[in-house]
Amino acid sequence: MAGLIEPRTLKGFRDFLPETMIPRERMMETARQVYRSYGFSPIDTPALEYLEILTGKGSEETDRQMYRFTDHGGREVGMRFDLTVPLARFAAQHWSQLGTPFKRYHIAPVWRGENTQSGRYREFIQCDFDTVGTQSAVADIEMVLVIHDLLRALGVDRFQIRINHRQVLQGLLGSWDLTHQTTPVLRAIDKLEKAGPAKVLEELEAIEGLDTQRAGQILKFLEMEGSQDQQLSQLHAAVAGSESGQAGVGRLQEVLREVAAVGIPASHYRLDLSIARGLDYYTGIVLETKLEELPSIGSVCSGGRYDNLAGLYTKQHLPGIGASLGLDRLLAALQELGRIPLVRTMAPIFIPLFDPDRLSDYLAIARLVRQAGFGAELYPDAKKLGPQLKYADQKGFSIALIAGSQELDRGVVQVKNLHHQISSEVPWRDDPIPLIDAIGNYLKMIEQKLLA
Amino acid sequence: MAGLIEPRTLKGFRDFLPETMIPRERMMETARQVYRSYGFSPIDTPALEYLEILTGKGSEETDRQMYRFTDHGGREVGMRFDLTVPLARFAAQHWSQLGTPFKRYHIAPVWRGENTQSGRYREFIQCDFDTVGTQSAVADIEMVLVIHDLLRALGVDRFQIRINHRQVLQGLLGSWDLTHQTTPVLRAIDKLEKAGPAKVLEELEAIEGLDTQRAGQILKFLEMEGSQDQQLSQLHAAVAGSESGQAGVGRLQEVLREVAAVGIPASHYRLDLSIARGLDYYTGIVLETKLEELPSIGSVCSGGRYDNLAGLYTKQHLPGIGASLGLDRLLAALQELGRIPLVRTMAPIFIPLFDPDRLSDYLAIARLVRQAGFGAELYPDAKKLGPQLKYADQKGFSIALIAGSQELDRGVVQVKNLHHQISSEVPWRDDPIPLIDAIGNYLKMIEQKLLA
Repeated sequence: MAGLIEPRTLKGFRDFLPETMIPRERMMETARQVYRSYGFSPIDTPALEYLEILTGKGSEETDRQMYRFTDHGGREVGMRFDLTVPLARFAAQHWSQLGTPFKRYHIAPVWRGENTQSGRYREFIQCDFDTVGTQSAVADIEMVLVIHDLLRALGVDRFQIRINHRQVLQGLLGSWDLTHQTTPVLRAIDKLEKAGPAKVLEELEAIEGLDTQRAGQILKFLEMEGSQDQQLSQLHAAVAGSESGQAGVGRLQEVLREVAAVGIPASHYRLDLSIARGLDYYTGIVLETKLEELPSIGSVCSGGRYDNLAGLYTKQHLPGIGASLGLDRLLAALQELGRIPLVRTMAPIFIPLFDPDRLSDYLAIARLVRQAGFGAELYPDAKKLGPQLKYADQKGFSIALIAGSQELDRGVVQVKNLHHQISSEVPWRDDPIPLIDAIGNYLKMIEQKLLA
Repeated sequence: MAGLIEPRTLKGFRDFLPETMIPRERMMETARQVYRSYGFSPIDTPALEYLEILTGKGSEETDRQMYRFTDHGGREVGMRFDLTVPLARFAAQHWSQLGTPFKRYHIAPVWRGENTQSGRYREFIQCDFDTVGTQSAVADIEMVLVIHDLLRALGVDRFQIRINHRQVLQGLLGSWDLTHQTTPVLRAIDKLEKAGPAKVLEELEAIEGLDTQRAGQILKFLEMEGSQDQQLSQLHAAVAGSESGQAGVGRLQEVLREVAAVGIPASHYRLDLSIARGLDYYTGIVLETKLEELPSIGSVCSGGRYDNLAGLYTKQHLPGIGASLGLDRLLAALQELGRIPLVRTMAPIFIPLFDPDRLSDYLAIARLVRQAGFGAELYPDAKKLGPQLKYADQKGFSIALIAGSQELDRGVVQVKNLHHQISSEVPWRDDPIPLIDAIGNYLKMIEQKLLA
């Protein structure tokens, strides 16, 4: 044999071992459940697209980071760097078949040749959901509700959805005669949470045509106090000269009112004028979601309303609103907060193998248990109990079903709760009910402990 | 605006609209559930690998078909063409952390620059599961059980798992003095189901050193009759001169015996000496799964045992067994057999929007229904009932909750069963139970109809 090839992954790419993939997969499943409960349907698009599709929409940075090459047929192709550009292409291509509104979710990997020094990865999962084809406030309200339900379903209780409107920001800029400086002002504003007011003030003052007084005025607006209604009134007065600014305040008002009416606790959302979503193509509502216990990691779910999704590919005017769960970021946060139990198996039950001559019995027990809806792993080799239980411990099983030849002769099995180190002997051969009940009771006990 | 970019996908690549993605996603979820129930855990690996990792294992064909390029850092990289080579690399790299046996599943896309004229796609999902690190018969038996449970869970009742053993084939070849012609003989044998006995005979006779009599003898063996026990005895006698052939017969015997003992119906599996799995790297049990209603589509779940998974990357000897569900092939078959209902939504309930001034009420009804566990879509725009119900019909909702201003004033809603065109008016405002019960009853009724 020639020399071995070193087994390694590319820089910026990751293997996911079971202990990381299990919570990732559970999070994706939860996201699917929540998206579906609002009528969003799944779609998928290719990892590779014609290069002209992808470069048609990306910024200079995404263009530079894109993985691109010439395929076997001489076509210039690129790997998708997000799920929004493919959605735009998809909507333009299939619009007549999709129905309006088109509500889709898409959970899939994307690739960017990022600088890995910044802690970024070159392959990551996006979990997007969008409502395309309507300007209705219902779609805006639902974005907030979906994010709320999603975080709750993921076991996050302390979070805040920060909501703003691009037209309100534009209206304010207009009232300050700063429309020509929109980009640098929004860029500065966006940094309030991360960099603090002093830094934002400094950056604002450096913008041409913006003096210290005006900069202070902007900052005061961003940090506006008072009740939500008072804030909305102030905003309304401030954008009095701008029709679209007033429409923006009206939309914000409607969204905040309906979200409250439906019973979302006030602690979970608020108006935040510092949310600008950088240089994105948003034109209406914009939102971000902060974890109160870990605000430093940034937004775990962000999005906004756009005027026209697919203008590069079709004359069909497609307004909509969408957001994206930051799966990896949220998972990292939950791990940091100790909310992700370490397990390497999704089957709760372990069955050690003692006597290989009684394999049929072990297989029968495993089958009984699975038919009752519990996952069960049968150890494949007849080793001593010690190494088998060590394996069970490493994997994180909850229950072991232990039976040697004697127990099998008597038609019983020892059900062992591996979390509490207690056990009971139950019959199984003629009637599986006692075994299934014992397993059910221990699992309930363990779940309570895990949640406590 | 300059000219539009034509929205199109690359040749051999597919968009999945909701009507196709919904059953695909359900199949993947079912596969995960079944894999998990046997203790298989999820992993993921990068789409891109160092080229030397991938070219280390592929055939000339996969090497030629591989998407490859030079990345931003000047590295030669390739897109994975299967999930087995990445598993080998992964196991070699992380073996000490994985525990033995390592049971993993991996559901992910792979890419091959196939000739699309043959109806093949250049991007498709693989659904693999493997048990690595043991030569135990338990792992072999479980492969059969998993495939059985998986197909049953996917709603397939008429299928047959065909089981063979490479050492038995080798033993037979030895007994016929054809060991030096293994490859062409296995290749010919493999075609029995598709091309028929006459074609196989012809191909066998064309092999050097193989006369008509010997070819006939081989074919007779492949089409062996009698009970399973009789067949195994005949095999045992035929490979008497080969220790490894006898071990193979013994393993086959054990697998078939235990699969029967655990209660798998005899119609779902059988010994089939024509299964060779082409030129794959298998060394033990090999298996394929045919749909009895549509055998022409080929195997929907195939796999086998290998001696050493990762010999190119590590000196660690890693025997194992794995199989793969042919998701796209099975989905195409189920669609052809009319088993996949056409729906474009995963939420059963549709709520038309009549009176935009009563938005809070519609949102409240939707929230009630979702909190009871039913997915519900609220139409975002206050159009006439006709277009809204047409939309509901296109999407395939089961139930509509219809309420105009008058109904809302009275605190009632009309629950309409869209499959049977019947409806009932129920109160919801003070107590949601009547509404939830009415929905539950209609859904039960509709499910029964769909299953009938």
